[in-house]
Amino acid sequence: MDIDMSAHPAWLPPEVWQPIAGRRVRVTGDGPLIDTVRAELRAGGATLVGDGADLEFGLGGDPALGGEGFEIVRGETRTVVRAAAPHGLLHGLFALVRSAPDGRHRPAVARRMVDHWDNVDVHPVMGQVERGYAGGSLFWRAGVPRRDLGRVAAYARLLAACGVNAIALNNVNVHATEARLLTDRLAEVAELAAEFRRYGIRVHLSVSFAAPVQHGLPTADPLDDRVVHWWARVTRTVYDTLPDFGGYLVKADSEGQPGPFTYGRTHADGANLLAGALAPHGGVVHWRAFVYNHRQDWRDRSTDRARAAHDHFTPLDGAFRDNVVVQVKHGPMDFQTREPVAPLIGAMPGTRLAVELQATQEYTGQQRHVCYLAPMWSSLLLGHEGPAIAGAADEMVAVANVGDDPFWTGHPLAQANLYAYGRLAWDHTLDPGAVLDEWIGLTFPGASPALRSTLHAVMDGSWRTYERYTAPLGVGFMVRPGHHYGPDVDGYEYTPWGTYHHADRDGVGVDRTMATGTGMTGLYPEPWASTYESVADCPDELALFFHHLPYGHVLRDGTTVIQHIYDTHFAGAAEAAAMRGHWLTLEAEVPAELFGRVAERLAEQVRSAAEWRDQINAYFFRKSGVPDRHGRPIY
Amino acid sequence: MDIDMSAHPAWLPPEVWQPIAGRRVRVTGDGPLIDTVRAELRAGGATLVGDGADLEFGLGGDPALGGEGFEIVRGETRTVVRAAAPHGLLHGLFALVRSAPDGRHRPAVARRMVDHWDNVDVHPVMGQVERGYAGGSLFWRAGVPRRDLGRVAAYARLLAACGVNAIALNNVNVHATEARLLTDRLAEVAELAAEFRRYGIRVHLSVSFAAPVQHGLPTADPLDDRVVHWWARVTRTVYDTLPDFGGYLVKADSEGQPGPFTYGRTHADGANLLAGALAPHGGVVHWRAFVYNHRQDWRDRSTDRARAAHDHFTPLDGAFRDNVVVQVKHGPMDFQTREPVAPLIGAMPGTRLAVELQATQEYTGQQRHVCYLAPMWSSLLLGHEGPAIAGAADEMVAVANVGDDPFWTGHPLAQANLYAYGRLAWDHTLDPGAVLDEWIGLTFPGASPALRSTLHAVMDGSWRTYERYTAPLGVGFMVRPGHHYGPDVDGYEYTPWGTYHHADRDGVGVDRTMATGTGMTGLYPEPWASTYESVADCPDELALFFHHLPYGHVLRDGTTVIQHIYDTHFAGAAEAAAMRGHWLTLEAEVPAELFGRVAERLAEQVRSAAEWRDQINAYFFRKSGVPDRHGRPIY
Repeated sequence: MDIDMSAHPAWLPPEVWQPIAGRRVRVTGDGPLIDTVRAELRAGGATLVGDGADLEFGLGGDPALGGEGFEIVRGETRTVVRAAAPHGLLHGLFALVRSAPDGRHRPAVARRMVDHWDNVDVHPVMGQVERGYAGGSLFWRAGVPRRDLGRVAAYARLLAACGVNAIALNNVNVHATEARLLTDRLAEVAELAAEFRRYGIRVHLSVSFAAPVQHGLPTADPLDDRVVHWWARVTRTVYDTLPDFGGYLVKADSEGQPGPFTYGRTHADGANLLAGALAPHGGVVHWRAFVYNHRQDWRDRSTDRARAAHDHFTPLDGAFRDNVVVQVKHGPMDFQTREPVAPLIGAMPGTRLAVELQATQEYTGQQRHVCYLAPMWSSLLLGHEGPAIAGAADEMVAVANVGDDPFWTGHPLAQANLYAYGRLAWDHTLDPGAVLDEWIGLTFPGASPALRSTLHAVMDGSWRTYERYTAPLGVGFMVRPGHHYGPDVDGYEYTPWGTYHHADRDGVGVDRTMATGTGMTGLYPEPWASTYESVADCPDELALFFHHLPYGHVLRDGTTVIQHIYDTHFAGAAEAAAMRGHWLTLEAEVPAELFGRVAERLAEQVRSAAEWRDQINAYFFRKSGVPDRHGRPIY
Repeated sequence: MDIDMSAHPAWLPPEVWQPIAGRRVRVTGDGPLIDTVRAELRAGGATLVGDGADLEFGLGGDPALGGEGFEIVRGETRTVVRAAAPHGLLHGLFALVRSAPDGRHRPAVARRMVDHWDNVDVHPVMGQVERGYAGGSLFWRAGVPRRDLGRVAAYARLLAACGVNAIALNNVNVHATEARLLTDRLAEVAELAAEFRRYGIRVHLSVSFAAPVQHGLPTADPLDDRVVHWWARVTRTVYDTLPDFGGYLVKADSEGQPGPFTYGRTHADGANLLAGALAPHGGVVHWRAFVYNHRQDWRDRSTDRARAAHDHFTPLDGAFRDNVVVQVKHGPMDFQTREPVAPLIGAMPGTRLAVELQATQEYTGQQRHVCYLAPMWSSLLLGHEGPAIAGAADEMVAVANVGDDPFWTGHPLAQANLYAYGRLAWDHTLDPGAVLDEWIGLTFPGASPALRSTLHAVMDGSWRTYERYTAPLGVGFMVRPGHHYGPDVDGYEYTPWGTYHHADRDGVGVDRTMATGTGMTGLYPEPWASTYESVADCPDELALFFHHLPYGHVLRDGTTVIQHIYDTHFAGAAEAAAMRGHWLTLEAEVPAELFGRVAERLAEQVRSAAEWRDQINAYFFRKSGVPDRHGRPIY
């Protein structure tokens, strides 16, 4: 690595403080977050004054602004930022930095979280960060805490500046070492929490449901008094050290993690156990709904993994304590490039729900490919082709995409995904293109029109481009097993993971209809149940998710399934090549190291897109025997 | 692991010394190997006497017996074992133990070697032993030599008792730590060599062609004087420590290993460099012919990996020094369950050739499946469906299948493969069933007729059974990439490894004919070139290795390709289930731990065979659309 190891400033380079620099600022109020506001202003070049200010930050705003809302009023000679609570002033400061418009600003949901899948020890298969594509953990290195927390402080600032207010530090797959963070390694958590606290970000921990057993109890049965007492005692100790600790995140009975099923108990029993321990201290449990049979027999077509979270959790609606948040992935499968919204979302009106997005690009190019995810997230939030997540979700969560890479995210342009996540979690009505534009302005201060338009050309449509050259029509999971990078059409077809496409010489796709399939379409509210059930009405992008279709079936866009596969794959790969062409015009516009890193990754993206194109086309040509209408090369 | 960690006696349990125990034996001659003969006799319960012996071991046999041959003459009152050299007496002793018949016995080839793919460090992907299915290395544990060499001594004895006389200790993929065995870690090699020396087994080392660079030279160019001197000096030091050192084993320009191509030199240049360093000391270079393009573009059908070794090496025939042995895998691909013999074998009359077999069951069930390999090896040696290896091979080599597992080989029945390898290397005319019978007699002393016949029922046909339920008709490589266990028909189809099957909706197989394919059939001598070239004459077992055939093509056995696939897969899985049934009758006949271990593995074999059956059948049914003639379930 011959790149300067000091971190890239991301969306907070010195130049963006221009709206602040040189101004006379008055800040009223006290407390740690107000101290942070003052420190940021000073660092940004403002002069703090008692009076005669042309910029004022102060409490006393309308109580309806809540704990994090703020109001900006720009007068002729003076700008005023008001909030009802200190956290609002901090948000107001960063809003001013990004030149937010006048008016009242409140977050759409109260908790906007990032979940790190960081391991303390380097995991033999998953590495330091599970599904991490940006180097090692910011928090631990080879089993021990990092000594220099400068990167953590910078990270906390970046998160605060895009609106994130909660963080889970460690992987939901809790291994032996990581289980000790809750107990004898709590001091490490406290050190990290101190950095995040200064930016209004509360720290949460992933815990193992079997923790009592790991610590010597004979059982982890949630209804056993010893277990109840163990969690109460341990939780009390956590809060003695960390009075503002956020709570626990739990992956239970999922992909081999322990859970209440071991004891014949329900997920409500399990979640309520932890919620009971946390309630006296104001903490919450995030209880993941990612529960399915990962030892399915591929020969069994009656079991449908896409139903699993819904089938497991909806019967428990109303059974969870108030401080339980059921955390559900946005789609019914697992963060594929295209999935319908998970039918569980909206189906538990009596339960607090957090919706989990994946900023780390596990299935979307692993930060080697440009894939700006905000258009997908926006579409899901607003309900463009299914029930809207916004409204149904009480909280938002994203799996983090950062590491100790100098550009934070491996691919420098992947920074935009983290930024956009924070902004959309705060305000789901934002336009993804506008958010990108905001990010460009912050990240490339003084960006020329050419730089701006070229970045839009590269990024705006990059998710759709990625979709075009990878798995077609919502079918998903045509990736290499294990690492999930690159194509392997049958890679998961005969495995126990419940991820199938059922391609044969006549057709492809999973029949999830009520009429002839697994009935999963019926889990949706109308009009979506009918829309998905009907081959004629189902959006093309989800055609193979919900239906098994003959290759000759004519889609809504007028092409056949097979020709659509060929067309999108040729188009997607060509678009990837075009993206690279666009980028290469920017050599004089962006710093050399950033230019080089992106150029190098785009070269790989172009190679990989051609590989996807050729494998997918070859696979379906060999199966279907249908030639490409345009006679392009298929191998 | 709740199994007794003391090693299983394998084919040398105390009971087999019955032909020796209590006898009065006279041994004449001196030297370390004669000392070993005496020690073995004493341990076996014989009384060593000066005269009055009823069993005699002595030198002075016909010089035509060579260094390892021996003669057994059983008289009315006295048995005499004669040899021309001490090593022959040691072989004679073990021959007596297994009740070999009277007469003269000489090995077919002078060197019968096992190659260990043991790493010193635990490799992050490959583990302690690359493609090892029997636990850790007998030689190293987690980077350091094992302190207790008792297992090594026992292993040396087992090898000697089946006729092996050379061993390469470390993996042909030579990583950084292992490269130091040649230099500053030579003392570890010396300790191991001492154990093997007592049993007439010479030690060899795998070395990296880039070793001079790793040790500080700017180049490893075989024609550079500094490199020549480096190897000469290092080799001299090795022989100072180990005067009977065997030589070097080299995997060069192969799967990422360094080699002479880096310097624009030939394999002859490379091999002769090392041969020159070894020649003054009597050592040899084993230079592997496993050279192919492992970064092939799957879209390129003109490149044929099966040609590669032949195309690389035959032009060099005659260019190698006398103490170079070109070591070639038995087949042109890589140890698949069924391959034709490698066309390189027999095609280099002016070069010493070693043929490499794979006792470790990488592609043949990984020692979880019973797969007695001697029938395959015998068929290849004798030339049942291609040119005979015997005659063309000057030496035999097998990749070892042992580890620190208490049963040596993980699967207790896999011991038979190592035993049979040694015996067939000594005498390729032995019948595989007779060798198995010999192994049964030694391993299960006093075996009842029921035990004997049941073991034959389980093992005799196990290779053919394994072939039936896995990749069909010689096509190979339908395994999970990476670990190579279990089915994945397309797992290697779109990879750079050169291992394809070209299945589409119409047919399957690789066209290697001269008429329309890669011309690989033309690399064989007649009559084999014509036999393989002709669809009508090509053996069914190799039909898809040499031809791309429509599913409806009628094979020599009268069935179509597709029906053959279905039939063999149903039959193979049923045979695996029957093997398990046979074994379960043996509970009272064999030790409990051995019974349990085999039973547990057979359960996995039955499961895995059904998985193979169903995946292969489903894959080809989905592609071909042809139903099974007998209506059996295909998913």
